[in-house]
Amino acid sequence: MSTRANREFFAVRTVAEALAGFRPARRTGVEPVSLDAALGRVPAAPIVAPAALPGFARTTVDGYAVRAADTYGASEGLPSYLDVRGAVRMGAAPDVDVDPGGAVAVPTGAVLPPSADAVVMVEHTQEAMDGTIEVMRPVAPGDNVVRADEDVAAGGELAGAGRPLRAGDLALLAAAGVTAVDVHARPRIAIVSTGDEVVDPATATLAPGQVRDAIAVPLAALVREAGGEPAPRGIVPDDGDTLARELEAALAESDVVVVSAGSSVGMRDQTADVVAGLGEIFCHGLALRPGKPTLLADCGGVPLVGLPGNPRSALVVFRLVGMPVVRLAGGWTAPPVEPVVTARLARDLPSATGRLDGVQVRIADGVATPLFGASALLSILGAADGYLVVPEEATGLDAGAPVDVTLYR
Amino acid sequence: MSTRANREFFAVRTVAEALAGFRPARRTGVEPVSLDAALGRVPAAPIVAPAALPGFARTTVDGYAVRAADTYGASEGLPSYLDVRGAVRMGAAPDVDVDPGGAVAVPTGAVLPPSADAVVMVEHTQEAMDGTIEVMRPVAPGDNVVRADEDVAAGGELAGAGRPLRAGDLALLAAAGVTAVDVHARPRIAIVSTGDEVVDPATATLAPGQVRDAIAVPLAALVREAGGEPAPRGIVPDDGDTLARELEAALAESDVVVVSAGSSVGMRDQTADVVAGLGEIFCHGLALRPGKPTLLADCGGVPLVGLPGNPRSALVVFRLVGMPVVRLAGGWTAPPVEPVVTARLARDLPSATGRLDGVQVRIADGVATPLFGASALLSILGAADGYLVVPEEATGLDAGAPVDVTLYR
Repeated sequence: MSTRANREFFAVRTVAEALAGFRPARRTGVEPVSLDAALGRVPAAPIVAPAALPGFARTTVDGYAVRAADTYGASEGLPSYLDVRGAVRMGAAPDVDVDPGGAVAVPTGAVLPPSADAVVMVEHTQEAMDGTIEVMRPVAPGDNVVRADEDVAAGGELAGAGRPLRAGDLALLAAAGVTAVDVHARPRIAIVSTGDEVVDPATATLAPGQVRDAIAVPLAALVREAGGEPAPRGIVPDDGDTLARELEAALAESDVVVVSAGSSVGMRDQTADVVAGLGEIFCHGLALRPGKPTLLADCGGVPLVGLPGNPRSALVVFRLVGMPVVRLAGGWTAPPVEPVVTARLARDLPSATGRLDGVQVRIADGVATPLFGASALLSILGAADGYLVVPEEATGLDAGAPVDVTLYR
Repeated sequence: MSTRANREFFAVRTVAEALAGFRPARRTGVEPVSLDAALGRVPAAPIVAPAALPGFARTTVDGYAVRAADTYGASEGLPSYLDVRGAVRMGAAPDVDVDPGGAVAVPTGAVLPPSADAVVMVEHTQEAMDGTIEVMRPVAPGDNVVRADEDVAAGGELAGAGRPLRAGDLALLAAAGVTAVDVHARPRIAIVSTGDEVVDPATATLAPGQVRDAIAVPLAALVREAGGEPAPRGIVPDDGDTLARELEAALAESDVVVVSAGSSVGMRDQTADVVAGLGEIFCHGLALRPGKPTLLADCGGVPLVGLPGNPRSALVVFRLVGMPVVRLAGGWTAPPVEPVVTARLARDLPSATGRLDGVQVRIADGVATPLFGASALLSILGAADGYLVVPEEATGLDAGAPVDVTLYR
């Protein structure tokens, strides 16, 4: 089969089809991490409370623990008088209880004495004579008190599986005494660059026609943002056998392999031919601009993502279809939280129906200005605040239309 | 001066006043980092291009380099015939030039031969006889070519100072051969917990009245999110002299000191008294719920942030006024990109004028549902998808009103 015939055999898909249909089953294993290192890690199973939280009935205000019935009918004109039996210290068990007609001073967060059922805020009391307080407002049972298991019951869920842990989750886990959690290992993502013209970024002086690899470094950053561990494997020259050997080695050691597939038609075809020999191609071509020459394949259970050789296109494709593959391998079951702002489009934006357009934009004062220019220009990546997507069904967007811009961070 | 008189002397400020008025001058020093580790780091000065980018006139399509004048008037019916003089290989200098009536085959990204001024896309050509092509569409000088300095001129800015580097910036820096950048050192943020009732999260079994420190771990996570390096200093008992010694030691080693100041009125006053002896208090009290008992002080040039002892309140305050202080110390000059979504409020939300309310919410199907419950309940932190702010001037928000929710990530 000739290269051309081979290529035409492969399907072009929409981005939505790729996201819904290309979902390799590979997941990373499970490893324990300490709570200090758990931010952004993905629990492999729900994390449950070893005991009830807070674990004791607790006051929520500074005031007096009482029996609520002793305050019924109290008012400023006709306060209830209660005898102060003592005080509870923070962090200590009460050494005094509340009898009928009695009250015990409590700071916020203290243990409620066993026979008390509510707390009167100090602002609603007044010291009458030595050892007595006036209560000016009634309280009901449970007022200004948190029950022993009101926050979380023993065995109750503290954090779900499949979603990265956030700062608030860590607070709850720390409170419950969970200082190690079982999480998915970070997926290991091989990054392979190709191209006879491509040289290491550390190359100080370029020979004519050479360009520095502008994909591997930002790709590693996006891999980390998606919870993966980048494993850059350097630059492979445009030779089918060499590329096949390098991809085989990468597949053996990785959870996902990403290859930037060269910018010329010949190089892209060669990459597709090599990958066709290593696994099953899901699509060769996405209805996406920039990013049409995108390759998705399943190579014996390891997903392979082939990106365009143009750095701007490669980063758009990797954000839209590559990062979801990384997250999937790392156990995410929910989409990520993205910084999105709504803005007004500064000018008309033409687009072809049936193709999704990813457009770099600058944002100022609620207006999104598309940044145009040859796709080879990288300076637009530095100038853009984010990108917007023109959906497949649209033939373009009008100036002034509201658009959702995903911001870079 | 009594504790109470002292306390009343301190100003209560709005959050806006705190953000505008509390801007200590301390900045971290500058350190070099490799490009691989530069994501999210803040350049101390603009980064400029050592040489023009791409550095040579470059083709942007697969096709034929030509002299544009040779294609004027070309059409499908009356094509221009050009003689193919050879081809340029990727990554190599051209060893053939374009003479009048000549053309040179070029892949995308190749060096433009010196006498060519445009490229005809291969789709607009046809092989005529051996060594000749038909050009079916005219090109103008510069078509399908990027000039040698079109991306960035030598000395041009690649990335600005004061904003964290993003993936797109790294692509541009790699392309320009900038593999080390001078960035602000991560500010070192001391985290001090206080409270006789507070014990280490690793405490397996609590004595009555004890609670585990649920602030230090999530605070460390938020410090990292703001670009800082957390330095947890453990739990200090409620004793003025001990706290003073510990804060003095922390101030000597840190760029910012954060102290969770206890939950009872007495403990908060004690912290304020200690801090008053160490520096100048900017405010003791924020017009914020939760988070009123917030302390901001400048201690000999080191900012100190005193947080409420309640973990939920502490995290709201730290997001609103603490993280900006960390970023400032780390050299940020622009606000961060936050994930914000607009949603409809599920129910009325009352609020007092003159006070800003931070409300935890759950988001589903574009509807934001406020999560209520005693401020002592931490499970709300796990359940919340984000928070919204009811502005100081509002007396509340109506059900159905559009609200901006900042999402947790």
